[in-house]
Amino acid sequence: MSRSIRLAVIPGDGIGQEVVAQGLKVLGAVLPQDVKLETKEYDLGARRWHATGETLPDADLESLKEHDAILLGAIGDPSVPSGVLERGLLLKLRFAFDHYVNLRPSKLFPNTATPLAGRPDIDFVVVREGTEGPYTGNGGSLRTGTPHEVATEVSLNTAYGVERVVRDAYARAAARPRKKLTLVHKNNVLVHAGHMWKKIFDKVGEEFPEVTTDYLHVDAATIFFVTQPERFDVIVTDNLFGDILTDLAAAVTGGIGLAASGNINPTGAFPSMFEPVHGSAPDIAGTGKADPTATVLSVALLLRHLGYEAEAARIEGAVAADLEARGTAPRTTGEIGDALASRVAG
Amino acid sequence: MSRSIRLAVIPGDGIGQEVVAQGLKVLGAVLPQDVKLETKEYDLGARRWHATGETLPDADLESLKEHDAILLGAIGDPSVPSGVLERGLLLKLRFAFDHYVNLRPSKLFPNTATPLAGRPDIDFVVVREGTEGPYTGNGGSLRTGTPHEVATEVSLNTAYGVERVVRDAYARAAARPRKKLTLVHKNNVLVHAGHMWKKIFDKVGEEFPEVTTDYLHVDAATIFFVTQPERFDVIVTDNLFGDILTDLAAAVTGGIGLAASGNINPTGAFPSMFEPVHGSAPDIAGTGKADPTATVLSVALLLRHLGYEAEAARIEGAVAADLEARGTAPRTTGEIGDALASRVAG
Ligand SMILES: CC(C)[C@H](C(=O)O)[C@@H](O)C(=O)O
Ligand SMILES: CC(C)[C@H](C(=O)O)[C@@H](O)C(=O)O
Repeated sequence: MSRSIRLAVIPGDGIGQEVVAQGLKVLGAVLPQDVKLETKEYDLGARRWHATGETLPDADLESLKEHDAILLGAIGDPSVPSGVLERGLLLKLRFAFDHYVNLRPSKLFPNTATPLAGRPDIDFVVVREGTEGPYTGNGGSLRTGTPHEVATEVSLNTAYGVERVVRDAYARAAARPRKKLTLVHKNNVLVHAGHMWKKIFDKVGEEFPEVTTDYLHVDAATIFFVTQPERFDVIVTDNLFGDILTDLAAAVTGGIGLAASGNINPTGAFPSMFEPVHGSAPDIAGTGKADPTATVLSVALLLRHLGYEAEAARIEGAVAADLEARGTAPRTTGEIGDALASRVAG
Repeated sequence: MSRSIRLAVIPGDGIGQEVVAQGLKVLGAVLPQDVKLETKEYDLGARRWHATGETLPDADLESLKEHDAILLGAIGDPSVPSGVLERGLLLKLRFAFDHYVNLRPSKLFPNTATPLAGRPDIDFVVVREGTEGPYTGNGGSLRTGTPHEVATEVSLNTAYGVERVVRDAYARAAARPRKKLTLVHKNNVLVHAGHMWKKIFDKVGEEFPEVTTDYLHVDAATIFFVTQPERFDVIVTDNLFGDILTDLAAAVTGGIGLAASGNINPTGAFPSMFEPVHGSAPDIAGTGKADPTATVLSVALLLRHLGYEAEAARIEGAVAADLEARGTAPRTTGEIGDALASRVAG
């Protein structure tokens, strides 16, 4: 039986182009011969916006739907007003394709630099809600630009939206050796949304008696990220808290150059999208300094999502081995990609 | 001329009682003979709520107004539903007394344990907005407890509120040797509030040409807190981001046992309130394990606010000397308080 993957590719801005090229190189090297890989590249991001004023036209959105998955590099450029590409392209994709599970694993690999003394044993996964909370774009401003301006941001949360992501997180926790799930919110201040999250978290927990649970306020969680990160196994949290915590998690596990993510629609109704957590880093774009490892690890998440578990594990093993074996001399984006591609081809 | 301080004291819950006792001990020891200190203690917190159902009755609020400042220990207890005391007492005080500058200095003292390798040189101040943002309590829930529940949290931001705290932060930055101010927000996603903050930040900056400015998204800021905390001098940010960042700041500078804060109303219209950043820590209440240093440093902020600069500096010097001189044997709450009191009395 011949298998195929229809992959949409959005390299995006800055280093996005460079890291995606390496991700595709490793993907090509790891896939079994009988899997037919069809890729289609989309010109979306700052260049397109400057040329046409478009961020994500309907035609592109429709065409993206005809794929099994999306690989995205990075979105954002200083030449574009803050928010235009983030809201008009990246978040539009996450919302249009109902990516309610924003999956962000954090692992301290051997031979990587962590800013933490004592190198704690870090291996956890953040399940960040991806379609609600303060990210809906709800809100506005009145008397804009005057001394009487009032600006609001509305965090929208539904039982439907919270329950599905919480259940997904429990299932992931149940499948891991430690079987521990921590809810992070701020329910002593954001009482409306926070209490709803907590109630649903407790209720869904009844379906998973084997999972140990815990609750932390987001401020306290940041403390444990630096003093006791080994206490975490799976974390479930809202869209904004998840954004903040996963950058911090990336920092303590050796940097944003290694942090992968998946924007997942577990129902399969729409293609899921995989991207490094890092941004477009315009300051180092074109210099060959970008580390493609986060993108390569995102490709592993993509393969696992499509059912290629063995290939996903092979990539993750290759990354661990590559980090372990590397010397102290800096390598270019392409050199790291080559090293990983040859390891997975093995 | 005889001087006097009318101090309202709210020990609150858990270790609040114990650390406030030491704060008062040090305050008594540092004050010049001619300063008359009148204290009035308020029974507010979990005990009062259980006894009477009250969190902060109007009579107490009125009576608190008749003071020059408030010293608060900690609020919160697991026996009270999450949010009741936080919203009904602590935040009610911050809002009623218009504490728009929530001042939180972070300094890595000698001979203290930081989780960061390499002990970076950390000495910054977070100016957290204290009366707006996601903390207003605005929002609600519909079809509560049903599968159709919708819960909202509304972040309210006004040009008036943002401008006054931003100007205060510039003035603080201008008075420090490095003269650097960083705005932290998330204006690529929370575009309504975020753009207003950024516009006002840039505008007010014209009045302070000597101050170098910088902008960071909150997620990126957490990365720098652990990889390059020495880059920060003064940070200004919204209520929720400030809450999160200052716990992280406390963690990287040796823990929440050393983090002081002031809820300041710079106009003097209402008494300002000083409190350690830590909570009531019910797990160690009554064991003598609580470190009163954060409260003692909050007393220094209180004295500085009331114009007792020499006494404030004496307390800060005593804390630095005490940390430097201490051995490895654990000390009780009272022993630390005694050591600090005898140093400032000097
Ligand atoms: C670029 C930005 C909109 C995005 C987010 O806030 O989700 C990024 O920080 C991320 O974490 O993927
Ligand atoms: C107890 C809680 C309401 C409070 C806050 O969120 O402001 C605390 O975390 C703080 O930082 O003072």
